Parts: sequence; structure tokens; C-alpha cells
Amino acid sequence: MKRPREITVSLIQMEVAPGCPSSNTERMLTAVAAARNGGVDLVVFPEMSIPGYLIGDEWEREAFLRDCEAAGERLRAEAEGITVIFGNVAMDWTRRNEDGRVRKYNGLFVAHKGRFVGPENGHYPFVIKTLLPNYREFDDSRHFFDIRKLALEENRPVGDLIRPVPVGDVRLGCILCEDAWDLDYAISPLRLMGEKNPDLFINISCSPFTLNKNHKRNRVFNKISSDLGRPLAYVNNVGIQDNGKTVFTFDGSSCIYDGQGGQVKGPSPFTEGVLTQTIPLDSARSFGQPIELKDDDVSMIHAALSYGTRKFMDARRIQTVTVGVSGGIDSAVVAALYRTLLPPDRVLLVNMPGRFNSGTTRNLARNLAANLGAYYTDIPIGESVDLTCTQIQNRSIQSVDGSLRSTLTLSDFMLENVQARDRSSRILAAASSAFGGVFTCNANKSETTVGYSTLYGDLCGYLANLADLWKGEVYALAHYLNGSVYGREVIPRGSIDIVPSAELSAAQAVDEGKGDPLIYPYHDCLFRSWVEWWNRATPEENLVWYLDGSLAERLGYPGRIDALFATATDFIADLERWWNQYQGMAIAKRIQAPPILAIKRRAFGFDHRESQIGPRYTRKYGELKAQTLNGG
Amino acid sequence: MKRPREITVSLIQMEVAPGCPSSNTERMLTAVAAARNGGVDLVVFPEMSIPGYLIGDEWEREAFLRDCEAAGERLRAEAEGITVIFGNVAMDWTRRNEDGRVRKYNGLFVAHKGRFVGPENGHYPFVIKTLLPNYREFDDSRHFFDIRKLALEENRPVGDLIRPVPVGDVRLGCILCEDAWDLDYAISPLRLMGEKNPDLFINISCSPFTLNKNHKRNRVFNKISSDLGRPLAYVNNVGIQDNGKTVFTFDGSSCIYDGQGGQVKGPSPFTEGVLTQTIPLDSARSFGQPIELKDDDVSMIHAALSYGTRKFMDARRIQTVTVGVSGGIDSAVVAALYRTLLPPDRVLLVNMPGRFNSGTTRNLARNLAANLGAYYTDIPIGESVDLTCTQIQNRSIQSVDGSLRSTLTLSDFMLENVQARDRSSRILAAASSAFGGVFTCNANKSETTVGYSTLYGDLCGYLANLADLWKGEVYALAHYLNGSVYGREVIPRGSIDIVPSAELSAAQAVDEGKGDPLIYPYHDCLFRSWVEWWNRATPEENLVWYLDGSLAERLGYPGRIDALFATATDFIADLERWWNQYQGMAIAKRIQAPPILAIKRRAFGFDHRESQIGPRYTRKYGELKAQTLNGG
Repeated sequence: MKRPREITVSLIQMEVAPGCPSSNTERMLTAVAAARNGGVDLVVFPEMSIPGYLIGDEWEREAFLRDCEAAGERLRAEAEGITVIFGNVAMDWTRRNEDGRVRKYNGLFVAHKGRFVGPENGHYPFVIKTLLPNYREFDDSRHFFDIRKLALEENRPVGDLIRPVPVGDVRLGCILCEDAWDLDYAISPLRLMGEKNPDLFINISCSPFTLNKNHKRNRVFNKISSDLGRPLAYVNNVGIQDNGKTVFTFDGSSCIYDGQGGQVKGPSPFTEGVLTQTIPLDSARSFGQPIELKDDDVSMIHAALSYGTRKFMDARRIQTVTVGVSGGIDSAVVAALYRTLLPPDRVLLVNMPGRFNSGTTRNLARNLAANLGAYYTDIPIGESVDLTCTQIQNRSIQSVDGSLRSTLTLSDFMLENVQARDRSSRILAAASSAFGGVFTCNANKSETTVGYSTLYGDLCGYLANLADLWKGEVYALAHYLNGSVYGREVIPRGSIDIVPSAELSAAQAVDEGKGDPLIYPYHDCLFRSWVEWWNRATPEENLVWYLDGSLAERLGYPGRIDALFATATDFIADLERWWNQYQGMAIAKRIQAPPILAIKRRAFGFDHRESQIGPRYTRKYGELKAQTLNGG
Repeated sequence: MKRPREITVSLIQMEVAPGCPSSNTERMLTAVAAARNGGVDLVVFPEMSIPGYLIGDEWEREAFLRDCEAAGERLRAEAEGITVIFGNVAMDWTRRNEDGRVRKYNGLFVAHKGRFVGPENGHYPFVIKTLLPNYREFDDSRHFFDIRKLALEENRPVGDLIRPVPVGDVRLGCILCEDAWDLDYAISPLRLMGEKNPDLFINISCSPFTLNKNHKRNRVFNKISSDLGRPLAYVNNVGIQDNGKTVFTFDGSSCIYDGQGGQVKGPSPFTEGVLTQTIPLDSARSFGQPIELKDDDVSMIHAALSYGTRKFMDARRIQTVTVGVSGGIDSAVVAALYRTLLPPDRVLLVNMPGRFNSGTTRNLARNLAANLGAYYTDIPIGESVDLTCTQIQNRSIQSVDGSLRSTLTLSDFMLENVQARDRSSRILAAASSAFGGVFTCNANKSETTVGYSTLYGDLCGYLANLADLWKGEVYALAHYLNGSVYGREVIPRGSIDIVPSAELSAAQAVDEGKGDPLIYPYHDCLFRSWVEWWNRATPEENLVWYLDGSLAERLGYPGRIDALFATATDFIADLERWWNQYQGMAIAKRIQAPPILAIKRRAFGFDHRESQIGPRYTRKYGELKAQTLNGG
């Protein structure tokens, strides 16, 4: 009687250091040895586990590419007594990419008995990623050659190039990341592969965390695994990788779909670990647990934020952090978050009162510092602001020959910015370096969207880790930190209850209930429709919905629009005010903003590319507006 | 006897306002009417002349796409008595792009007798761009569907989709921009089109200015036009478009290649205008002038810088500019350049002396101001720097409960940064707003490469218009401004001759000949190999070349390497010092740097994408270094 076939697989949910083939490979070699000793048949590493994935244009350096290739050779040589699958850049030094540089593929390598094994009938000894994402933060077609172009070049059908990899008597249906997210593509690598009846599907990924993405993946991957009636092993890395302005966390969440609607979960999100599982190959047999499908909540936002911030500090060897604390909610949340990552003597909170700061907020800042046990100091800005006024206000200027004469004048609005810049560029920059580290940017996504911040002022900092959270999400995080992380009220109730205010002028006096011009949560909902929706809304759609009464429902705003705006004129004035800011000065500010930690779809920066084209309105908007205002 | 066929064509070298379909279309309608009145048969506008091209992710907004489509309809309706060719986003609302959004092509529209005419045998009433660039600043595959994927989807050969557009008895070989730059692609749209014997090739482009690109285009386009024995009309827009961090100028340089090695030149670079030419169709007859091929010189750098800076100011309605002038070369060149763009009463030069600034440089700054006739003032930083020291240096900090106690300490290096930030974030930011405008960033590409600048200090500004020029190119521009633009020494000889220095410490005393640690032009040449070369070099290649004696020749450095570095140890120390900066802190600084005006290949920002992966060295470099230092 023939023994039922099965295979013992280890999925290595490793942290990948982007751009560091040597250190990644060392760790992979260790994992291979451990798996071999543990009697594992097949060890699987994530996509681009050797080079990393989000590494900018590093792919243009041939010395780096040779380094990656040599690292892959080291792994190949170790594939004795065990089969090793990993991701790496796959080189064809004899051909060119369409940019004229050497040909590169996003490759999956199967090393078996000391040799690389490619797909049946393929001429390359590696598997090529078929679906190359070019949306959000992804630039795959910038660097990697497309298998469909290869098929054209070789005059073969694409399906001919998508085949299982034979390893002994097991045929592995190997694909990379996006290949399984085929909903919007004309071809489905998994289904093309499925026609060739592999024993097991392997998906290696380098898939950044995005709120609610895991649940979508569970639905999509489980369905296709069940449709094809074969198990699908998914391995994804942890760590952080960035595209400069935008920093992405990777949660791993590696797992196995059993082809029968079940799932074997791997290591916890944002944690290195190994999932080892013996998978039956001949029978369609369930071996997983039922899949739980639910949306992520604030605990996942907190997990991604904590992990991303910690890893960003680690990568830059940052050991102390200074936070400017105003008494308001944003800086309180930032400070409370850092205190979970650093001991009290590595955190310095600085309150920087000026003439418009209330005793109320100053006390809140101090209470926060007392609750967190960190260093606290207050450094007033008054004297320096006065000096700047003395030097600039009413200053006579002239040409050297005296033929031109004029006087400089600082308006009240300019004086607000002078205060904000004094705090960040003068005090925080100096104090944080004197404390031995960096200072934070506490901007949230609502402010960042409309540039409600001062360049070289509160927009400064080494990292803006709240800048992908709407103001409402910042409040939710405050409650979560108090309730679930600290278990006590470290963020003072007053900071949560007080009206949000920049306190830069008499018009922003919190004790009189005056503050920011943004209306929460209405503006969060409105801005989300501009920034985060996949098909992004504009004032044209917003006005159509306002006029047909569907705006609140469309935006997901829980209140009544007519309670905010008595007339269409008011609604339109508000709409244009913020759209003009979002498309105008705010872009100029975002260009010079700190790196932003991405949590959701469409984080500013590389995931939300923009040009300084200025605020514009469609013709249809113009017509609708004219009709509305003229009672047409 | 049959009359020889000919066609009168007007190429419209227009300024395209990115993201503004309505205003672009108004201007195009005017041009159509003028051409019709002038008896022109065919009027041709540039690629994406309706929507603009570098507009970030604006393509994700359906309201914008509908606006563009409606604008195209207006042009179609005007194509009576004249044929109109223009570029626009081409929509297929029934299909999807691979990102799940609506299907978009980069399209060329031919409007004739009030209807759109597509290629023979094509099903779309527009021509699709075949070659989608995804290098440098281009993201075509992010937004536009690929004709090769369309061919696969429709199960047709690609060549079947690339056909001339029939207009009366003339068959037009219409292509878009990159389609004619086919050297690195597996397919050549022009040659595929050529097989179908069109009467005339039309290339509509939106091709950013890059130093020396025009001459390369003349070689490539003339060759293919001559090979195919048919005229090729090339129309490109002027204006500026940006990708946020990186601002591109467009020079137009529209022209006609006559298929016999001749060329008819169009309007001057960076100028709006029309090239009208009657082109013979039946005979292979030369009607152009011989093509001059020569590299661009500093006059083109100056032209692009002036044009880009002026257009950037215009687009943002900036009418006054403040320049911090140190007496050094970079700020002098910036000031002299702005004075050519603005009257003297719209330019304010500010010298901001601190304790380390010499009388020499202060006088140079004042002389510059006298020569330019602009406003000039000096605002010292001493008092504010002292105040910052008083507030931070030796400040006691403690936790609220007193259990933690420490003292803040500012090092000399931190004090250098305090001075630089005081100048920009405190004085220039306030003075420029009080003067009614913005202030400039004077950073060059050498400094920007290695982050030799202070964040929130001299890296601040609304635009860094020299940041794509190596220090050597800044000097060349200074000579050009004096010699050819002003015709007198507006930039003082002393600013050109003096050692470059930040003057932030006693170690940088110019009167003692002390200054910046960068060695010009050696470091320019070295950095160029890392940043600008198409196949970018790394320390591995640099060290190999150093060891085999070819470094100076490879880098194009005119001096002797051994005159700079007495030993290999010295060479390696310098190499690693700057590589660590380039790949380390400099990236963090560039993320928060102002927009950069691109002049050459690989401007920082969108044309040189990068990730904060930190400085790394290949294994081979490590081995070579060990051998070298150990005398192995």
C-alpha cells in the first residue's frame, strides 16, 4: 500500500533588512540549518528576502545586484537534504530592461540538491513574478521585467511560462505576492498554474501592512485555494521598509490555507517566527482552523504604530526622543506612545509657552509628563519672539546706493508662524540634540491634508508617526493607550476634552472655547473622500451629493450636514477653503514634511503622489456651483 | 497630370498648464482657429496637451478624467476644414486598469471632419502610446494601460494595433513621445508603422528638458526618419511640470525631420510658438537644413534655470524673493539669477553675520548687493544664538517627581547648526514674509548629495534651483552670468576666488584659507559616478579603479588622484566618509528638502528615488578593502 504523500514545510516569517543582502542571507542560512535539523522538507522565505523590496533605485547599481546574486548562490549551496525557496532579484545579464539597464526580474528561487530548479518547460532556473503592481507605493515596472513582455519577446503564450516547479515527486505551484491578487488583472497566475495541477501552492510576499488588508487577503486567498482544492502557503516578512517619505511596516501574518476553507495561522503579526506544518498532498483534507474574518480595530493601528516607530528608531540608532508637548491631544498621544518604547530617562517632554498659551494647557502638559515619568522642562519662546519682532518689524531696508527704500511689516498671521518656528527650529532642534537624539513631528492626517501647520515649525521632526491618522483616529488611540496599554489615565482627560487649538493667537483661546477651524469628524470624512477613496472624490462629487441630500451617508458622517452649514453658500465656502488648501499650500508643505508612517491606504508621500498643480475645479463643478448660488 | 501631394502642417509649441484641461483647451481652440484661417491642413498639439502629464495621482479622479474627455470633445467639434491632432488621456469606461480603476491610455486623437479617426483596423478612435517609460521621473505604467497587454487581452499581435491613421488620402503614422525612443525596447513602433508605409510620421511629445537630450534626439529621430525615408514632425510643449519634489522644464524644440537628413527647426527653446511647414508627401525630397549636432553648454543650463525659476514663481504667484547672501558663490549666483527675473525692488538680499563671519565675506555680500541694485540689509544672529545657548546649554532637566535629573549639553557641532537654523528658520522666514514673498534655498548638488547642509537651516527655502548643479557648474554659471548675461562683474571676483566655507566655526575661517571639506572638482566627479551615471557606480567600482590606476580617467577628473590622497588608507577614508553621508543622513535631509529644479539626468527626488536603507558596502568591496589595507 502506498504511503500517503505529505510534506513538512517551514515558513520563515523573518525580518528583512532592506538593501542588506549579506545580513539577510546570514540569517537565512541559520534558519535553513535549523529547519534541516528539525527534519523539515521545505523551508520558505519571503519575497525579496535577500535584497529587500522597497529600496528606491538601488536596483540600478550593478555591484548591489552582483552582491544579491552571490548571496543567492550561498543559499543554493546549502540546499542539501532540504529544499529552500526564497525571493531575490533574478538577473539575466545577457538581456536589457526597457530602461537600457541589465534585465532584472522579481524572482522566486527553488534550490534543491544544490541546484536551482525552474518551472517545467521554462528556460530560466527561477520563477518570475507575473503581476507587477504599479499602484500605491509600488514601482515594480520601474525595475523588473514583465513576464508578458517576455512571452511576446519569445513568441510564447504567457501560460506556457507559468508552470509548477518539480521537486522530487512534488510539484510546487510557486507564485509571488501580487500574483494571487488577480482580481483586476486580465490573467490569473494561480488559475493558470492550477490548470497544471500542482500539489501545493506557495506564495512568497513582501506585503506592507495596511489596515484591513489581512482580512481581505484571507477572503481572496482562501477562496482561490478552495476553488483549486489545494493548500496554499503564504509567507510574508516583518520589519520596515521605506520609499523615503513614506515608511511601511510589514506584519508578516504568514499562514497556510488548507484548500478546504481552513487556515493554519503562523507567528503573531509584527513578530519574527516560524510556522512549521506537515501538509497532506494526495487527499483533499482539511487541516486548518476556520477562518475568522473581521475588520481591524484600533489595536492594530496601535500595533503597527508601535512597531513601525520602534523599528524606525532602531534602524537609525535613535535612543532618545524629545517631544514638544502643548497640552493638546496629538502631542500627548505621541509622548504616551514613545514612553511605551523608551525608558523614562530617554524621553524629554518640552512645553514651550508663548503669550497665547493658557494655564489650562500648560498644566495638562505637565500632568502628562508627571503621568509618564519622563523628563520635563518648559522653555518659553517669548524673549526670542520679541527679539525677532525687534529685528524684523518695521525694519528699514534700502538698496546700497539708497535709491530704494522700504519697511518690513510682520502681520499677525506671520507672527503666528514666527512662534511655531521658534518652538521647533530653534528650541526643539537644539534641545533634542543636546539631549542626544531627535524630536518628533506630531502632525495628524487631518492637518497634513490641508497644511494646517507651519513649515519649519510644527511640521518639523524626524518622523511623523501620526500623520496617517485622522483626528478621530488619534482620539481613539488616546482612549486605547489609556484604557488598554497603560490601564490608567496617562493622557489627561482634559487633553481629550479640550477644544483642539494651536494657541498662536487670541482667536485661538481654549479657555474661551476657541480653537482650530477644522470641524471633527466632518472634515475627517470629507478629506477621506479626497485622499483615501480608491476612486477619489472631488468637490464636484461632494457638491452633487450635498445637493441630492446623500452627502452624510456617502461620506460616512454620523451627523447632519445642515447642522454644520445653514446654507449652500456656507457649505461651498467651506468646501473650497479646504480644497484650496489641500491642493495648494499643503502640497508645498508635504514636500518638505518629515517621513510619514503609513498605516492605511494612501499615506502621503509615495503612496499618494502629487504635483504642485494648484487648486482646480472641474467645469461641471463650476456649473453646479453657479446654479446653486444663483438659485438656478 | 496629377498634382504632387503635399500637406501644410502647423506644430503648436504651446505651454501646457498641468492639471488644467479647461485653460489648455481654450488656448488650443484659439490656435485651431488661427491655423484654419491660415489655410493650414493639419494642426498638431503636444502629448497630453489637454490634461498635462506630470500631475501625480490626479489620474485617479474620475471627475478630472471626465473633464479632460469633455475638453477633447470640444476640440473634435472644431475640426472642420482642418485636421486636429492632440494628446489627451483616452478613456475606456467599460474596462479596468490593473489597479482596478477605470481603463486609461496615454492617447493621441486625430479629429477630422468633426469626428475622431483611429488607426486602420483599430477598434478605438484614438492612437495608444506603445512604449511606456518607467524610468527617471516617469510613471507611465502606474496610470496608463499598455498596448502589449491590450494585444494579449484581445489575442492579436501587437503590430496589428500599430497602424497609420487615414485622413482623406493621407495616411499619418502617429506615435507618442517614447515610441520613437525605441533603442532599449523589444519592439519599435516606428518601424512597425513604417511597414505600413504612412505618408508622414507625427510624434507628439511631453518631453522634459534634460541637458544634451536635444542632440541625442536629433541623432535618433533623424536616423529613423532617414531609414524610413519619410518626414517626421515632432512637437513638444513648453512650460514646467513637477512631481512634487522635482520640477521639470520643457523646452519644446519642436521641429521636422525631412527624411533625407535635413531638419526644419521650430520656435526657440522655452518659447511658445508655431512651426508651419508645407511637407511634400509623394517624393523623397529634402526640405530641411543640415542638422547641427553639438553638446549643450552653460548657456542652456542658464536658459533652463531662468525659465524654470520664472515659471515656478509665476505658477505660485510669487512676486518678491529674499535671498540670504553669505558672500560665497552659491548665494551670489542665486541672487544674480533672480535679479534677471525680478526688478530691483522685488529682491531683498540679507546678510546674517555671526561671530565666525569674516569682514571679507560680509563685504563681498554687500558688493554683490550694490552691483545688483536690490534691497540689502544685514541682520545679525548673535543675540538670538546667545539666547538659545542661555536657554539650552547646561539646562537642568528633571522628571516632574524629581526622581530623574540631568543636564543638556550643546556641542560645538550643535552650535554650528543653531546658527544655520537661526538664519533660515528665524530670520529669513520672517523677513521674507514681511517683504511679501518667499526665500530661496541656495544648495548645490554637491552639498545636496552628501547632506552638507543643516536641516531647517540652509536647506530651507521655497525652491532649490541650483540643486541639480555640481559646484563646478555653479562656478561656470557665475562666469556666464558676469560675462554673457550682465556683461559686467556683478558677482564679485572675490566670491569666485575665495575658498568655499560655511563660516560656522573657527575651523572654517576663510581668511586663513579654511573652508568646506569637499575637494572640488574631485568630489563632483566622484559623486557624479554615484548619482548621475546610468549604471551607477559604488565604492566597489571606485576602489577597483583606484587600485588599477584608472580612477581619474573613469571619473573624468582632470587632476592626479595621488596628489589628493597620499595613501590608499586616505583614499578609502575619504570614499567612505562621503558614501556614508550620501547614503545616510543626506537622504533624511533630502526627504525634507525644498523642490529641486531638474536640469540633468538624475535630479534628486522623483528622478532619483531612494530609501533610508543606510550606508552599505558590497562583500567584494569589503574583501578588496581588507586586501588593500593589509597589503594582501
